[in-house]
Amino acid sequence: MKNFSLGILLVFSVMAQAQIARVEPPFWWEGMQRDSLQLLVYGKDIASYEVDASAEMPILEVTKTENPNYLFVTINTASVAAGDYELRFQKEGSPQIKQSYSFKERREHSALRKGFDNADLIYLLMPDRFANGNPAGDSHPKMAEKADRTKPGGRHGGDIKGIIDHLDYLKDLGATAIWSTPLCEDDDKTYSYHGYAQSDVYNIDPRYGSNEDYVQLSAELHKRGMKLIHDYVTNHWGLQHWIIQDLPTRDWIHQFDAFTNTNHRMTTQFDPYAAQIDQKIYEEGWFVPTMPDLNQSNPLVLNYLIQNAIWWVEYADLDGLRVDTYSYNHKQGIAKWTKALMDEYPNFNIVGEVWLHDSAQIAYWQKDSKIGALQDYNTHLPTVMDFTLHDALDKIFVEEEQWDQGVTRVYENFVNDFFYPNPNNILVFAENHDTQRFNTRVKGAFEDYKLAMSLICTTRGIPQVYYGSEIGMQGDKNKGDGDIRHDFPGGWPADKQNAFLPQSEKNGRNAYQEQYFNFSKKLFNWRKANPVVHSGKLLQYVPDKNLYVYFRYNAEGDRVMVILNLNRKKQTLDLKRFTEGLAGHKQGLELLTGKALQLTDTLPVMPRTSMIINLTR
Amino acid sequence: MKNFSLGILLVFSVMAQAQIARVEPPFWWEGMQRDSLQLLVYGKDIASYEVDASAEMPILEVTKTENPNYLFVTINTASVAAGDYELRFQKEGSPQIKQSYSFKERREHSALRKGFDNADLIYLLMPDRFANGNPAGDSHPKMAEKADRTKPGGRHGGDIKGIIDHLDYLKDLGATAIWSTPLCEDDDKTYSYHGYAQSDVYNIDPRYGSNEDYVQLSAELHKRGMKLIHDYVTNHWGLQHWIIQDLPTRDWIHQFDAFTNTNHRMTTQFDPYAAQIDQKIYEEGWFVPTMPDLNQSNPLVLNYLIQNAIWWVEYADLDGLRVDTYSYNHKQGIAKWTKALMDEYPNFNIVGEVWLHDSAQIAYWQKDSKIGALQDYNTHLPTVMDFTLHDALDKIFVEEEQWDQGVTRVYENFVNDFFYPNPNNILVFAENHDTQRFNTRVKGAFEDYKLAMSLICTTRGIPQVYYGSEIGMQGDKNKGDGDIRHDFPGGWPADKQNAFLPQSEKNGRNAYQEQYFNFSKKLFNWRKANPVVHSGKLLQYVPDKNLYVYFRYNAEGDRVMVILNLNRKKQTLDLKRFTEGLAGHKQGLELLTGKALQLTDTLPVMPRTSMIINLTR
Repeated sequence: MKNFSLGILLVFSVMAQAQIARVEPPFWWEGMQRDSLQLLVYGKDIASYEVDASAEMPILEVTKTENPNYLFVTINTASVAAGDYELRFQKEGSPQIKQSYSFKERREHSALRKGFDNADLIYLLMPDRFANGNPAGDSHPKMAEKADRTKPGGRHGGDIKGIIDHLDYLKDLGATAIWSTPLCEDDDKTYSYHGYAQSDVYNIDPRYGSNEDYVQLSAELHKRGMKLIHDYVTNHWGLQHWIIQDLPTRDWIHQFDAFTNTNHRMTTQFDPYAAQIDQKIYEEGWFVPTMPDLNQSNPLVLNYLIQNAIWWVEYADLDGLRVDTYSYNHKQGIAKWTKALMDEYPNFNIVGEVWLHDSAQIAYWQKDSKIGALQDYNTHLPTVMDFTLHDALDKIFVEEEQWDQGVTRVYENFVNDFFYPNPNNILVFAENHDTQRFNTRVKGAFEDYKLAMSLICTTRGIPQVYYGSEIGMQGDKNKGDGDIRHDFPGGWPADKQNAFLPQSEKNGRNAYQEQYFNFSKKLFNWRKANPVVHSGKLLQYVPDKNLYVYFRYNAEGDRVMVILNLNRKKQTLDLKRFTEGLAGHKQGLELLTGKALQLTDTLPVMPRTSMIINLTR
Repeated sequence: MKNFSLGILLVFSVMAQAQIARVEPPFWWEGMQRDSLQLLVYGKDIASYEVDASAEMPILEVTKTENPNYLFVTINTASVAAGDYELRFQKEGSPQIKQSYSFKERREHSALRKGFDNADLIYLLMPDRFANGNPAGDSHPKMAEKADRTKPGGRHGGDIKGIIDHLDYLKDLGATAIWSTPLCEDDDKTYSYHGYAQSDVYNIDPRYGSNEDYVQLSAELHKRGMKLIHDYVTNHWGLQHWIIQDLPTRDWIHQFDAFTNTNHRMTTQFDPYAAQIDQKIYEEGWFVPTMPDLNQSNPLVLNYLIQNAIWWVEYADLDGLRVDTYSYNHKQGIAKWTKALMDEYPNFNIVGEVWLHDSAQIAYWQKDSKIGALQDYNTHLPTVMDFTLHDALDKIFVEEEQWDQGVTRVYENFVNDFFYPNPNNILVFAENHDTQRFNTRVKGAFEDYKLAMSLICTTRGIPQVYYGSEIGMQGDKNKGDGDIRHDFPGGWPADKQNAFLPQSEKNGRNAYQEQYFNFSKKLFNWRKANPVVHSGKLLQYVPDKNLYVYFRYNAEGDRVMVILNLNRKKQTLDLKRFTEGLAGHKQGLELLTGKALQLTDTLPVMPRTSMIINLTR
């Protein structure tokens, strides 16, 4: 591995006059809950200067590091009003350097912004693969990797404008929130489209658009009553990040004598018997040689990451964060980061990627977990991901029913909800950008898609769907990540077919896609209109013959019965067993067939079919 | 199902004079921690009598039930001294009935008796299948089922004398405790040999011997420094139990309109969304039509079960209880039962059968569990069973290594130890009388037996082995329970071969058996002599290439390195990785080969082999 402590000073050759190349965050806001702000000031030999500032923007502390090109200037922000201020840098024998710095007014109600919640349905998309609204920007003179749509792992040209252009499609579908994989600059030479190797975390990648475009995306979503969830990466940056290229301190990132891969053993984060070396390699090892692992135990790094995340929430008016590889971070560091965000925005929501295969282990990572408390640990993370439900969905459609197989796995997953401090704050999903495509897993069986989505949309938690599956898109993870991240058909001007358009329009969806879309649209919009499946209580029955029945109900008297029959035979339910769930309701309207049902005696259930029944008396 | 509330009065035809047929417990002890004793008095129309007693044995309360043949007489035992007392039953127009009742002196230190613990190695046996010391008692005139050794599910004639006769064998092997499956009377017409359908819980089944024989077994064990663990069944009795045949109250057992099998869904005991009907059928449903399910929420039943268990501890000088189907009981009832036992014997040990497949779910059932506390539940049960380790051992020898397969399952099991309030109080085992025989699971691979036993004997917890495996015994659960419960060869006088005897003796062990025995004896006795693997700390390393390394160490400076190489190739360990575990130790003596090792650089590990190394500096 290259030794990063030497630094690369090349960047300064072009700024002999300016001397201050960067100040981050580039601006801030008055009236934030945090009462200080640590400015990173970057410029050749800047550490040899003395700093002072306008009296109205008092400096609390100046921190220097082993690298003379950095100054960390901490401002007391408690009473700084919106306006323009000045930082002054002095050194005997050198001209004074003046650097303006602005505090802006906050949006009304910014602090109390409400995060996404279980009333939402989150649409996860990869911006490079969704829609190309501005083909002229597919490549960019300053960015290393150029667009090449023929490469599965190349940049395909999707962008923010492409997303904005299709917000009406998403609203029509019934999505209420977007989680886009990262949009910040990623200047890796290859494989940069996924955006997780960021080279500048204060700027949108120019191939996706500008910071202003991102703000526009947010505004356009809000105009439609929709929400924006920003994919945040605390664990690592790209090797091309300008700070990585000239490290403020050697321990800004985790360094080893030779390149050391993380062992990916998340278990080391709570193993009471763990060897130190295993823990260290897990937490400090890198994902790949181009992703240096950030050291969140360094207060300068932690502050930088906290302020950067707050900056995006405030700047782009965000409704939530999704945190990549949450459990790979320094445990105490990521908890502090999360608490800082939630202290700033107490009604906000953050979902962390905790890719574990044990409910109690996932519950460990949720705010106020009693299981985390077994090790005196509290992440302050409001929302976790239901990877054990995902594991179940990965299996139940492709295995025979047995005592502990088939839909019983789903039932058992919810049994474990007592481990969670807040089971309503769990993301439920059949797939994401890192997993096998669901429709491929079930070999394109439409009935299986319907069953899985019926579950995702009616069980407790916050549903998340993955772009393209609503038109039956397939893709095989075994062929590489590119295959589960195909371009959405119609997202590119040259595409022969446009699956954003209905079958009835020219080059619109084909019959296969149309049936997926129509089902998805009906289900997602029904969910939107039925708060009982957002926040109602859950009552579940032990599955029998691969058929699973549960109810959602609330104090307002709304009640929904859901039947997931994974059995390939027709079954007849004796409704006596479900007396508690039916609670005196004798009729129902089944969503998917539109049929009115009598619920007094028995109920026939078709093979491999779901039923979603709004109950009435 | 037969309606049990009618009762069967036939039993009284033979006792027209006596009128009191039973008093239970048959006697008690002075100076117990419990300050009351509820006597069950059974006799025709006994409820129509008034009761009084010697002033020195004051009656607190007399409880009558719907069945006139029962009186529950509660004695204030706080100051009853050892001696013989009298109960008097009066009714106008009838002669007085006198019933003597004795309080005995307790054994010295009885209250503070120490239960089995992680210094022990428990040998689980089925008494009908271990050894037949008294062939004359194989059948008994009063007991329905007669011996028939040709039937896999029949009675074979093993007995207490057979166990006593082979205690020297067990001691030589290195076992320090016996857990025998139930020895109380089971008068089922067929399939009675397993003893879990008890017909009298105050008497040893006459085919096994007498109560006095059982006391002798206990004494003979103690003489050898060994312990006795009694298999206790709180959940159900046999249909032939005399109380079941004439129920004191209809709700003594759980009754349904028609025979209702438990659904075996242990998940219903903590599912926050469980339907009441599923919970009811789980907890109240029966195992089989001949095993009525006891209602531990009925205080009369609960008291009966508490007193009966205490009676056995005191009477037979027990060192522990194993509780059958622990989690099938009424949740609050079984917690009260357990607490009552532990209040009486604070240093005692009880292990409950909690056959679950999720570590956090198992941890739920252990005393002072923080996971149980999530539902305000505390069983007070000191020891649980490591069924998830058993699940791992069921798989790792017969699957290929993958990211989450192979010996990694074992490592991951111990990661979850932070769920447990007390990981040292977990029974570890590769098999028991209800599971597949380990040696069959691994198709008789001796190297796999050695690997599994190396783990069981050196990891944290309390090891339990299963009779016969120490001589390589096989048996296939798929062929029925009888096949995993074969007679121990040599336990019957007519047996052609006697595997209790060494290969060197006539008709002794064959070469196959001898290698198993010699290995087991060496390992078990080594364990006995090495407290560091009883109670030392554990340090484990993430497995690599199906090879797992861990250390046990204590404050006294003892340190053991264990290597389980499931890989079929020879491997060479770079010992640098294990610096923390080696802690400066540079030499070691490997148990199984007897070889001295240098531990300074690398260590070769043979294919599919375990190493157990006592470290020295």
